[in-house]
Parts: sequence; C-alpha cells; structure tokens
Amino acid sequence: MYKQSTMHKNQEAVDELGRRAYDIAQEIYPFCRSLTGEGVRQTLKALQRHIPLAIHEVPSGTTAYDWTVPLEWNVRDAYIKDAQGRRVIDFQRCNLHLVGYSVPFKGTLKREELLKHVHVHPTVPDAVPYRHSYYQDSWGFCATHRQREELLDEQYEVCVDTSLVPGHLTYGEVIVPGRTDAVMLVWTHTCHPSLANDNASGIGVAAVLAACLGAKSRHLTYRIVFGPATLGPLVWLSANEAVVPRIQHGIVLACAGDLGSMTYVRSRRGNAPVDRAMAHCLKQAGRPYVIRDFAPEGYDQRQFCSPGFDLAMGCVMRTPYGEYAQYHTSADDMTFITPAGLGDTMVTLLDVCDTLDNDRTYVNTNPYGEPHLGKRGLYQDAASLGMGWTLNYSDGRHSLLDIAERANMPFAAIAVGAERLRMSGLLREITRNN
Amino acid sequence: MYKQSTMHKNQEAVDELGRRAYDIAQEIYPFCRSLTGEGVRQTLKALQRHIPLAIHEVPSGTTAYDWTVPLEWNVRDAYIKDAQGRRVIDFQRCNLHLVGYSVPFKGTLKREELLKHVHVHPTVPDAVPYRHSYYQDSWGFCATHRQREELLDEQYEVCVDTSLVPGHLTYGEVIVPGRTDAVMLVWTHTCHPSLANDNASGIGVAAVLAACLGAKSRHLTYRIVFGPATLGPLVWLSANEAVVPRIQHGIVLACAGDLGSMTYVRSRRGNAPVDRAMAHCLKQAGRPYVIRDFAPEGYDQRQFCSPGFDLAMGCVMRTPYGEYAQYHTSADDMTFITPAGLGDTMVTLLDVCDTLDNDRTYVNTNPYGEPHLGKRGLYQDAASLGMGWTLNYSDGRHSLLDIAERANMPFAAIAVGAERLRMSGLLREITRNN
Amino acid sequence: MYKQSTMHKNQEAVDELGRRAYDIAQEIYPFCRSLTGEGVRQTLKALQRHIPLAIHEVPSGTTAYDWTVPLEWNVRDAYIKDAQGRRVIDFQRCNLHLVGYSVPFKGTLKREELLKHVHVHPTVPDAVPYRHSYYQDSWGFCATHRQREELLDEQYEVCVDTSLVPGHLTYGEVIVPGRTDAVMLVWTHTCHPSLANDNASGIGVAAVLAACLGAKSRHLTYRIVFGPATLGPLVWLSANEAVVPRIQHGIVLACAGDLGSMTYVRSRRGNAPVDRAMAHCLKQAGRPYVIRDFAPEGYDQRQFCSPGFDLAMGCVMRTPYGEYAQYHTSADDMTFITPAGLGDTMVTLLDVCDTLDNDRTYVNTNPYGEPHLGKRGLYQDAASLGMGWTLNYSDGRHSLLDIAERANMPFAAIAVGAERLRMSGLLREITRNN
Repeated sequence: MYKQSTMHKNQEAVDELGRRAYDIAQEIYPFCRSLTGEGVRQTLKALQRHIPLAIHEVPSGTTAYDWTVPLEWNVRDAYIKDAQGRRVIDFQRCNLHLVGYSVPFKGTLKREELLKHVHVHPTVPDAVPYRHSYYQDSWGFCATHRQREELLDEQYEVCVDTSLVPGHLTYGEVIVPGRTDAVMLVWTHTCHPSLANDNASGIGVAAVLAACLGAKSRHLTYRIVFGPATLGPLVWLSANEAVVPRIQHGIVLACAGDLGSMTYVRSRRGNAPVDRAMAHCLKQAGRPYVIRDFAPEGYDQRQFCSPGFDLAMGCVMRTPYGEYAQYHTSADDMTFITPAGLGDTMVTLLDVCDTLDNDRTYVNTNPYGEPHLGKRGLYQDAASLGMGWTLNYSDGRHSLLDIAERANMPFAAIAVGAERLRMSGLLREITRNN
Repeated sequence: MYKQSTMHKNQEAVDELGRRAYDIAQEIYPFCRSLTGEGVRQTLKALQRHIPLAIHEVPSGTTAYDWTVPLEWNVRDAYIKDAQGRRVIDFQRCNLHLVGYSVPFKGTLKREELLKHVHVHPTVPDAVPYRHSYYQDSWGFCATHRQREELLDEQYEVCVDTSLVPGHLTYGEVIVPGRTDAVMLVWTHTCHPSLANDNASGIGVAAVLAACLGAKSRHLTYRIVFGPATLGPLVWLSANEAVVPRIQHGIVLACAGDLGSMTYVRSRRGNAPVDRAMAHCLKQAGRPYVIRDFAPEGYDQRQFCSPGFDLAMGCVMRTPYGEYAQYHTSADDMTFITPAGLGDTMVTLLDVCDTLDNDRTYVNTNPYGEPHLGKRGLYQDAASLGMGWTLNYSDGRHSLLDIAERANMPFAAIAVGAERLRMSGLLREITRNN
Repeated sequence: MYKQSTMHKNQEAVDELGRRAYDIAQEIYPFCRSLTGEGVRQTLKALQRHIPLAIHEVPSGTTAYDWTVPLEWNVRDAYIKDAQGRRVIDFQRCNLHLVGYSVPFKGTLKREELLKHVHVHPTVPDAVPYRHSYYQDSWGFCATHRQREELLDEQYEVCVDTSLVPGHLTYGEVIVPGRTDAVMLVWTHTCHPSLANDNASGIGVAAVLAACLGAKSRHLTYRIVFGPATLGPLVWLSANEAVVPRIQHGIVLACAGDLGSMTYVRSRRGNAPVDRAMAHCLKQAGRPYVIRDFAPEGYDQRQFCSPGFDLAMGCVMRTPYGEYAQYHTSADDMTFITPAGLGDTMVTLLDVCDTLDNDRTYVNTNPYGEPHLGKRGLYQDAASLGMGWTLNYSDGRHSLLDIAERANMPFAAIAVGAERLRMSGLLREITRNN
C-alpha cells in the first residue's frame, strides 16, 4: 500500500476522479454478471447514463477464431434448502453462491451427494469463493467453510433455476474520436459478478476515463470496450478486423481500485510506445510501482498479444490478480476498493494517454551549437522545461518521449518547453509517432 | 561444494552413472600418459572394453597447422639413487616423479647439480607436482619438499631411462550416429599421467556419456574424442577438415569429478546454442554453478575457439583448473573425485545434449487468440507443461529453448507440452535448429 | 579525494608534470579574464613563453552560427567608496568583486539603491562569488556577506570604469602535427578571472599537455585550443569548418587541479573511441573515478556535441563544476589546486592520447589454433603482454583497444605484445582506427 508521503500533490482532484469511478462501481457491483446474460446488459445500460456507450449483441453460435459464442445464461433463482425449508445457501443473498454457468437442476439430494457440489475457498475460510463452469455441463454452489460444515441434515432440496438458451454475448464500446484514426484501445472485462476490485473497479475507471478523454481534442482515437474475458476480445477482434491494423497502443485494465501500488505488465513486444510511456509516467510520478514482462497468463492481453495479433497492449492493475487474499472471493467487496486507489489509477492512465497523444518528433532548426535563448526571451524557463535536452536531441531520431526519458523529466514539462521552442521557430515538427 | 539440500531428486541414479565413470577413471588412473606414448595407448585400449572407440595413430613429423607431431616418448624406468643405492625418488612408485618428456640421462651427479633438476610445488609441500618439458631438451624429477630436503648425500646416481624416437601421437574417437550429420563434438584430454580430476575424471565421464548417448535415437551425430591437449585438437581438426563445418555444438570436458559446483566457460561466440543450453540446464537444475566468458586460456577451447575455427564450443569443469589446491599434484588422486561429483557432471551433460538434440521451432497453427484447449482435452496439463508459453511464442522466431528460457521452465517440460500440442495439430514444425 | 594507497607508482614524475602545470596556472591566475579583453590576451601571451601558441583575434560583430561576437570589455578600475573615501569593495584587490561585463557607471548612490547591485553567494558567506552579466546592460559588484552587511553608510561613491567598445574576441591554438591529418581536439576555457580550478587549472594542464604531446612522433594531429566558453567553440568551429570533419576525438578540459577523483562525461555518441579509451584508462589506472552520460549542460561539450556537430568529444574534470563548495567563488584559489591533482589529470590525458594514437586492428596470420610461440621465442612474455588475447581476437573485427578491454589489461601492455607478434609475422596490420 502506498504511504501518505507518496500521495498526490493534488490529492483532492485525484480523490474526486476516484469518487466518480467508485460511484459507478458501486452502482453496477450487485448485478450478476457472467460471460453472457442480463447482468452484463444491466451493467452496460447503467454505464449508458454516464457515457455514450454502444451496446453490441453477438448471437450464440457465432464463431470467433477458435471459439464459439455459447448459449446465453441467466438465473432466476438458486438455493439449497434444509429439512426445515430454510434457504441455507441462497443466490439471492450473494450471487457468488451459485457457480457461474450452472446448468438447471431441481431435486432432493442426500448430504454426501450434495457436498460434491458445494465448493469452498482453499485458504480463506470466511469468504465465498467465485467459480464458474464454462463449457462444462455441471452445476454447483460456493459457500464459506462454516456454511458447508453446517450442512448436517440427511438431505437437502436443491434448486438451480437457470436457463441456458440461444441468446447473445453482450459488450459495450465507447469511441472517443481523435484528429486521426490511429487507435488506442482500452479493454476491461465485464464477466465477473459481485467482485469489486475484479472488476467493478476496472469498469468504473474505464467509464470515467472515457468521459475525461472526451473532454478535450485528442490526436488519437480512443476505443474503450467493456466485454467478457477471453471470449470477449476474440469476438471484438473478429468483428473489428479493419480496426486492428490501426491499433497503435492499448491497455487491458483490471483490479483498478485497491490501495496497493500500480503494476504494469508490458506488452509482448516489450518496448512498444505504450510500454515506454507507462514506464516513464510511473517513474516520474514518484510513487512505488512494479513493471513486469509479458507472460501469456493473466487478463485479456493473452488474446490481444497472441502471436497472430501481437498488439502493443499492456496490462494495468494495482495489486495483481491472485496476489491479494480477497481475490475471487466475496471479500473482494466495495470496502476493498477506495476512491483514492481508483483515482490513482485514473490519473496514471490519463497521464499515459496524454503522453502517447502528444508524443512527436521535431528537428532543431538551429543545430550548430546552442541557439542564443536569451535574445528570444526563452532563457528564464529553459532549464525547468528541459529546453537544452529538447534542442540537443531533436535530431529527427528522438521523440519527445525519448527526450523526457533521457532528461529524466516529466513528459508534460518537456512538451511545454518544446511548444515554446516551436513557436520561436527553433523546432520544426517532422513526424507524429502515431 | 554443493550441499545436501541441492542434491538430485534421483540421487541414486546419478550416483550409479557416476560410479560407472569412477570405475573407468580408476582403471586408467595409474597409466603414465603424456603427449604421446604407451600410456595413452593403454588408456584408449581400456576404454575400448566399454565403448566402440576407434584408435588413431598419427606419425611423428606430421604437421598440423603451426605445429608438428614430436617424437614419441616412453619411459622404461627413472630414479634417483642415494649413496647407499636406495631409490629415494622413484618413477615406479609415482609417475609424477619424472618430468614429462624428460630426455634420457644416466650418470652420477653432485648434490648441487642434481638439485637443479629436482622440482617441488611452490605452495603444496607434501605433494609431488606435475611438470613436463615438451619441446625442450631437458630432464627432471618432481618431489615433495621433504624428499628434496632429504637429498643430503654428496652425490646421487640418476637414471632417466626414456626413449624419444619417431613414433606416433595417439587419439581415440567414438562416433554416435544421429539422424543428421550435424555434429556435436565432445573433447577431453588424455595427456596427463596419474592425476584423477585432471583428467581421469573427464575420460571416465566422456566414456560413459558416449555409452549413454548411444542408448537412444538421436537427431545430432555425436563425436567424443580422447586426445592430448593443445596438439591433439589441431591434429584432429587437421584430419577432419570436412567435419569442421558440420560441428554445430561442442564441449571441452575436464576436471569433471570433484565436489565443487559446475563451471561453464562460454564459447568465443558467447551466445551460441550450446552456451544458451548450458546456461538453461544449469539454471533449471537449481544447484549452484558459475558461468564465465570465453578467455583464450585454459583447456582446448583455446584451439577450437581460435579465430580460424571459432567453433561453438564451451568448456565444462567443476572447480576450474588451478583453483583447487590439489591441481597438478599427486594430491589430485582418486580420493579427490567421487561418484557423486562425476554423476552430477554426467547428468548435466546429458541434459544439455537432450536439449540441443530436441530443440526446434514450431509455428502456432491457430495464432489468433488462445486456442480452446478444453475442447481438445489439453487444459489439464497446460500450465505444468508451459503450453501457453509455447503457443504464444511459436511464431517462427522462437525455438523451444527460447521459450523454455522465457517461461523459466525446464526444457524437458516445454518439449513434452509442445509434442502434445503438435499431435493436436496446434503446432507445426518449421525448422530444426541443427 | 584519492588516498595515498591509490597514488601513482611513479608519483614523483606525476608531481613533476603537475608542478609544471601548477606554475603556469599560478602565473596566469591573477589576470582579469572574461569573454573578451586584455586579461585573455595577457593569459595567452604568458602561454606563448611555454608553447608555440598562435593567437587569433576575431572582431566584434563577427557572427558564429546563432551568435555574434560582442563588444570587447576592459576594466581600468572599479570600487565602492564609503563616506570616508575608503575603497570598501575594490576590484584592484580581487577581480571577482566586479561583475563581468559590467557597463560603465560613476555616481553616488543611496545605500538601498547600491545594495541592489551588490551580490553575495547564497551559501558560502566568506567568499566573493563570481558573476557576469553577458548580453545585459547592467553593472554590479560581488562581495562577502560581511562586506555587504558592513555597507551601513547612507550613501556610497561607485566607480565602474570599464570600456565596452568594438574590439576582438581572442583565442589561442597550438597544433601538434602528427603523421596523419586526423585530429584530436583539446579545448579549455579562458574566460574566467581569478578562479584556480575553474579554470587556471585547465589552462595549465592543456599547456603542459601540448608540450608533452610534441615530444614524440604521433599518429594523430593534436589541436589544443584556449578560448572563452560557449561563444569560443562556436567562433572556432565557424573558422575551422574544413577541420571539423577530421576531428576524430576530443576532450573538453576543466576543473583539472583539485584533489577529487577523475570525472569523465561521455560524448553525446556515448561509445565513441574517446569514450572507450577514457573508460579503459581510468579503469586500468586503479584509482577511483566516475563516468557520466552526456547531458546538454556543463562545459563546452554543449556546443561541440550539439546535434549539428555531434563531435566525439567528452569532458574531463576532477570534481565536477558546482559539486565543490568553492565553485565560482574566491575560495577557488591557488590553494585549492595542487601539483598532485594536476599531475594525475595530466597522466590520465597522456594515457588516453597514447591509447587513441596507437589503437589499430591486426589480423592473425596463423588463425588455425594457437601458433607455436615457443619456437619463435615469444612464450616467456606471452601472458604478461596478453599475446593470447591479441592472437585470438585479431580477426579483423577487434582493435587493440577492444582486446585490452576484453583482456582487462592495460592498453600499453597489449600494444607492446602486439608489436612483438607483428615483428614475428604473426600479426598483419589491416587498418588504423583513425
């Protein structure tokens, strides 16, 4: 967890951004999301009240590369009743109690038979674990250790009132148009039920990010997509093959709200602009962070960074999945995430987007020696805006991000200095990096 | 020395391999080997009882690049007798007492004159040092400090009953044919007399390695050569110029039996497949080890890695030559090497050979996203066999060894996983690395 | 500061070289140098008694890239007199008291008005700071804190009897011709008044270096230039555009006499021969040192390494400017520099010049295996002169400096060994690096 000493100078503004994300996360937290179904639609419709989200429905049976959209799954009710008719395990109280994609079942089961279907967490006894049975014809319940231990009656009535019928996989997308059609893609997954950090937090942050990005003119076109993990990216990629070649940068966003420090997992390319911008912004922010190499595991970079696509997409998390005790349990609730954590993720992402959006390459029009800054009134701020660095390295081979890295100064300062030099005629833009 | 905690899981099998090498080392330890002569022939004939070794005889006067095969040297007897006729220094008791390649001499010498010919070890007083006088017309004896100090008589009778006459340089070679004529060369030197680690150990390990390699079908053709240092490689290279372009990997093997940790000296190329395979196997083995850069010193990589050849050959030792007190003294005897040390060297070499033999490059036939492993029954073992890594990096630019390095998993596991993927049609082999 | 234990083996010779530089520094220390003026001329004329220095005069108004040579500045007198007519601040006592390039002024000022023109050092109260007002129409005095605090009279008489009239910028140059016209440029700045380390020290060392370089036949042509900072290099480059393409190596020299360890700032190229030679010599010398990456700040590498020139010039200092308390104050006097410090800088520079002068690439004429050194009488010194390294890496791709780096041996030893091998016919020179 980051300490008071590493908080933001403008902590109030950060908290305010985080509060907006928190409110959205709180609103959509209760819905029973899964790979498909009404819970996802409820979530996306809630987002539509905040951002201009288009909702896409992809029919069951649609193929996407090696995969096929399954039947749509919905839950009317699910419970285990004891001999006295009490709902001792009840989906209505916590949607994690039902294993995701459980097939319908009704009947009375002997205790021993029932227990085969009641799962607990191996290490966190007080929490209900999160489980699903995608692509398997089975049903099950999840419970705390105590709930399972208290199943002492001889037999129980089981109700899994679900439906698995042809329907749709649902995803949402916001497009924030920029001056060019070069795309930065932000992807966050929507398939987890009531889990706050994984991933109500990512949904909330991505929604506020979409709103913030639209607030000023941008070079890049941003696409923020909300869809189910694994299959979602493949369905989206399959439906957007014309867009794929224009994706220059991307972020998979998850676990965005706990108080741990930021984690960035590099794209498969390892040194793509998004990787360098993220490393630069995290370093300049002066708060603790961790950067890891790509590995074909974790979130949806597994699909975006598969060798056929190999997109320049990294993964942004706070504490990585599986490395906090609450992961995939009922303890990952709305008390586990905070406006401060969500806000820190927000400003990091905005900083990275600004960096990628404003990176460009200039040439020094006066490359023989240092230009005489004094006679142009530029001497005063030259050092604080890194003008010496920008003039020296604007040789056509170094972009502003390259220069900010060398100078070990914030990109924003370098960019402001560069703009003053450009207006004085000392720099001429030659290329955009995008 | 490696600790109990880092020993092998299958320590008994390792000890058994080491025991076979130890027995061979013990058998050939007593022979008076040198650059040429009967001691080498005895050694190679002993090996012929274990492996299908071809013995080659190269006449004195044969040139090999800048060098010429010298006269053959043999010893009938050598001693220093005191005034009472006692052999106070006696080649029959320890062949290190006679300086190798000593020219014949018989006569009675005053003490002071004799002492000029009696060498001791500078730092190990109790041991007889090993010395030779190749390409010099001289003779000499080696002794312990005490033996030399006790030479107090006025004069001594000296007998160096050696012969230096046209004969042959002798080396042996085993060829283990593979499915291709790409060669892996293993070289170990045979020119040291009764020194156990340097290099009865290498001779023993190389002989057992040859036997083990022949036990299953191999991709590479292995050539295991037993010859004298420095001149031996040049004679072999000169006689095998047609083979040289096919040498893809190689190891110079020496000091293979002490209990120190493994040392690998990289080839001059520095990042050849053999260098990478060795680094990978040593790292995955989980025992302490040291890797050093190439230097034009040490064993016969000096010849194989000279700029005209620049072969991809590294050097495998346990404790490096010169870095143990017993080095080149009578204290390097059969108690200094152990089956456990020899066995650890053996399994390391076998692991490296298996890695080089099985390395290959595949392409993922389903590169857009992750393939659906569940529907192919591959999901269960996918993680333990690194299938995610193999699928992601099988893009035609990464071999299985590259992938094992990235995944930080044993090559063998990656190779098993790859084979399952290949059988499911998810991988297609495109090239062999050899 | 370096310790006795890291001093030179030939400390007396080093001190003697340092003493020569110290004497020159002491001689020119008192002169009132600035960007232009008589102080610079006095300095250069003093040097002419030691070295064959050509003095160049460049008229006011001459343009050099983005800059223009300003009016020439000279001082007849300058003081502040109190009510009793005492010179309480007096240029005659210390030329740092007058802000460099102060415009003429005479008059009586109220105390408060005067104090706006009297500058003190922010952190070193007892020292007079060094200031200038280039390209500004202003005047000022510098004083200790105490001197300023004692200005308690109601009003003071101020005299700044300077002249700013069309004249010249003056610089000096020594050319030490070599066998080729490939140039190594040594630049040191001459525009600071009575400051010993910055930069009477550099002037002294550069002068003795010029004398030493001329003492033996050289491959490179050396140009040692003494001129004002910032504008000086641009004036020189502008006047020597035909020479620029022949500048293969260069050093900007300053702060050459304190007792701190050596600092080297790499050229903008980062891995130019001068960067590698300097790193090699500093490492082999075995004394503490620091190497830093290029940054567009500090001394005149800012001009030489601007992107239009991008010359392979690094910067040699002892303690870097701004990192010692005496920097740019009257405390940087002749007690702050020592013959030992100056001598250490001298021998480092001579070592680097010798390395660059003698670096070349050979090919091994006998590349198949090691040549038989014994039969050529080369075996004895082979190890101490790194002959194995030189033979192995003389493959046309490694120069002697490359080899010395790999062998981790002094360049001089490698060069001596290479010369013996060349005379034996085992090496053939193919290219000069210059």
